[in-house]
Amino acid sequence: MNSVVYTRLTDNLHMLQYRDYETKYFEGLWHIPEGVTYNSFVLETNEGLVVFDTWKRSLGKLYVDEFSKHFDVKDIKYLVTHHMEPDHSGSIPYLLASNPNMIVLGHVLSKGMIESFYQVKPGFNAVKDGETLKLGGFTIKFIHTPWLHWPETIMSYIEEEGALLTCDAFGSYGIPSKAYYDELSPEERTGFTRYMAKYFANIIGHFRDWVVKNVEKLSQLNMKISTILPAHGVLYRGGDVAGVVEKYKRLGVGEPISGKTVIVYSSMYGFVEDIVNLMIEHLEKNNIKPVIHGFTDKKWSDISEIIADVYQAENLIIATATYEAKTFPIMKHVSELIIEKTPVNKNILIIALYGWGGKAGSELEELFTRHGFRNLDVIEFRAGQHQAVWGQLKDRLSKIVRGNG
Amino acid sequence: MNSVVYTRLTDNLHMLQYRDYETKYFEGLWHIPEGVTYNSFVLETNEGLVVFDTWKRSLGKLYVDEFSKHFDVKDIKYLVTHHMEPDHSGSIPYLLASNPNMIVLGHVLSKGMIESFYQVKPGFNAVKDGETLKLGGFTIKFIHTPWLHWPETIMSYIEEEGALLTCDAFGSYGIPSKAYYDELSPEERTGFTRYMAKYFANIIGHFRDWVVKNVEKLSQLNMKISTILPAHGVLYRGGDVAGVVEKYKRLGVGEPISGKTVIVYSSMYGFVEDIVNLMIEHLEKNNIKPVIHGFTDKKWSDISEIIADVYQAENLIIATATYEAKTFPIMKHVSELIIEKTPVNKNILIIALYGWGGKAGSELEELFTRHGFRNLDVIEFRAGQHQAVWGQLKDRLSKIVRGNG
Repeated sequence: MNSVVYTRLTDNLHMLQYRDYETKYFEGLWHIPEGVTYNSFVLETNEGLVVFDTWKRSLGKLYVDEFSKHFDVKDIKYLVTHHMEPDHSGSIPYLLASNPNMIVLGHVLSKGMIESFYQVKPGFNAVKDGETLKLGGFTIKFIHTPWLHWPETIMSYIEEEGALLTCDAFGSYGIPSKAYYDELSPEERTGFTRYMAKYFANIIGHFRDWVVKNVEKLSQLNMKISTILPAHGVLYRGGDVAGVVEKYKRLGVGEPISGKTVIVYSSMYGFVEDIVNLMIEHLEKNNIKPVIHGFTDKKWSDISEIIADVYQAENLIIATATYEAKTFPIMKHVSELIIEKTPVNKNILIIALYGWGGKAGSELEELFTRHGFRNLDVIEFRAGQHQAVWGQLKDRLSKIVRGNG
Repeated sequence: MNSVVYTRLTDNLHMLQYRDYETKYFEGLWHIPEGVTYNSFVLETNEGLVVFDTWKRSLGKLYVDEFSKHFDVKDIKYLVTHHMEPDHSGSIPYLLASNPNMIVLGHVLSKGMIESFYQVKPGFNAVKDGETLKLGGFTIKFIHTPWLHWPETIMSYIEEEGALLTCDAFGSYGIPSKAYYDELSPEERTGFTRYMAKYFANIIGHFRDWVVKNVEKLSQLNMKISTILPAHGVLYRGGDVAGVVEKYKRLGVGEPISGKTVIVYSSMYGFVEDIVNLMIEHLEKNNIKPVIHGFTDKKWSDISEIIADVYQAENLIIATATYEAKTFPIMKHVSELIIEKTPVNKNILIIALYGWGGKAGSELEELFTRHGFRNLDVIEFRAGQHQAVWGQLKDRLSKIVRGNG
């Protein structure tokens, strides 16, 4: 597996991509067996190079080595930091060490971060929203896109290339076999649609309102975007541009996939699993194929996948054991992440089982309600009673079944 | 690997042990690569068999098959359920199916649980605290030991055998090569000391005050205990009995291991890890070898091990990243488990780093303080500033270093 890929995108625009197969938990938090890439872009002009974002800190030396195979670091005139998250800004100090004269361009907030994070004091020009830079026949417009997903996030639009460099926005997990989405097989495209939604839910989900605002803002700028170049994953061009913007809008507003039903459960000894199996059977009889994520003594689901699935769910069923008179700990953790990351517009059915005392149901109900989730239903009973409460439970499921009718 | 082991402990007392190598997460929560056993005991009398606890539900058929190799299920007169957690009670319905006449003995609360969990209605006699049963020349005394770790927990003392059957109390994770602790090699004994402490912290830690009360109660009963027979892990006899009771008392009162220092950290991009490495170096120079647990993009520590280590720690350093203006999620989860499971008498130093806004430090401080942790110190700063704050930080570490002097 070749980890470093150089791609000449156009005569003047280049990509240095690192394919990261080693990172197991993105941000130290999200399990990504599919890997991730860091895409750094270089604009070559006859007045010098402009670099847009870099790779993460531990790859700093490799980045400079790879860069030097294609360009001279001394020719860098500007380095644009779209945001200061270290997976993109981490190699900046390595470039600066080889070329202290380059000027860093970014949001005014980035100055303090770069100085603190990397103990460097580069020449820094803060760019205003809408400001343009002209260099060697190219016009670069900077657009403030706050909270995608840090406060200082900006994008760059290279007019003559029709290229919008979007940093984390429009980014995806996964390591594409080719640079552009239109070069991928249908199967790989399906994979990347999922990886984008997963990345969105995990990383940007909390700031989805800002996605809507910023996509709206971009659409009013009358740019002629022919390529969207995110800093993670696959690139988009031509006819795919409108499609990915549309997908992103839908993710931003939190539009659920119609009928999508997700069951997340924890089972200590199999009692919760028994009732989950009853529900699956009932739902499937009614032509609903739920997505199942469980925490049992044999297997734990990936929380990164749970958040991705729940983000786009119309219906969420949480079935949990009670633990020391509280919610089963990992289910509380997952519930808090669901609250932080996913839209409130879904139907939620909470099923709580207990051995010697019920509490998880009311605890989760309070937690979700306090955070604006309104369509809640709760049913709580002692382990083993699932046949006795099955009638009640089927009533509660009827909302999901009807919704699918 | 033979999963089922039958051991004749004495002329009349037998053990049926299942060695569980498959359960990855005990209780669906605690990672146990070391495995676990379920120990069921059978007392053979000339008036019938008394069974004490069984195996978990999914092993029910296997349990009856194994039982039948050595005894006749129809000869079971009494089945004692020390507590109703399904890893011990799960095979009861399978025994009942073969012998509906056996009488279940247990705490009065167990009746409702057995009927609910397994949809059976066996003959049930509630045993009072201190009540004795005489059968075929044996005297069995039942002792209520509430909240070890369920409300209905009892123990049995077989007078003529000097055997105290303790269910989860004195239990350990791990699969011993021999039945008794005194049969193990020194290395394996060290392992089981750890497995007992880990099991204690994970499973019983929340109820440690009840351990103290119940051990005190046991010691006042003037029993002549020659063997302690827990339902998980290794057994104790002879000279080891006093030792394990002493160990258990110390765990119950939450006595820390002198000088034990644990660092638990999360690092998204390596900044927290940088400061952790500085601290390790400083502590080691001062002859303190901290135990390190981290959550990074490459590796996550086992929470089961963290809780075991923190339980006996004198000093705990929590170093965390800030995430979306809150505590890094997995560190909040771990902190909540530390609060639920471990004693409040430790020194805690909280180190919180942030990129664009600090909050984790005050959030964790509030969380620990609210739950009775008093010896807290907090230091919060922007990523990259560890050299600048190192003087301050060294001051805070001096408490740990001095404590070791």
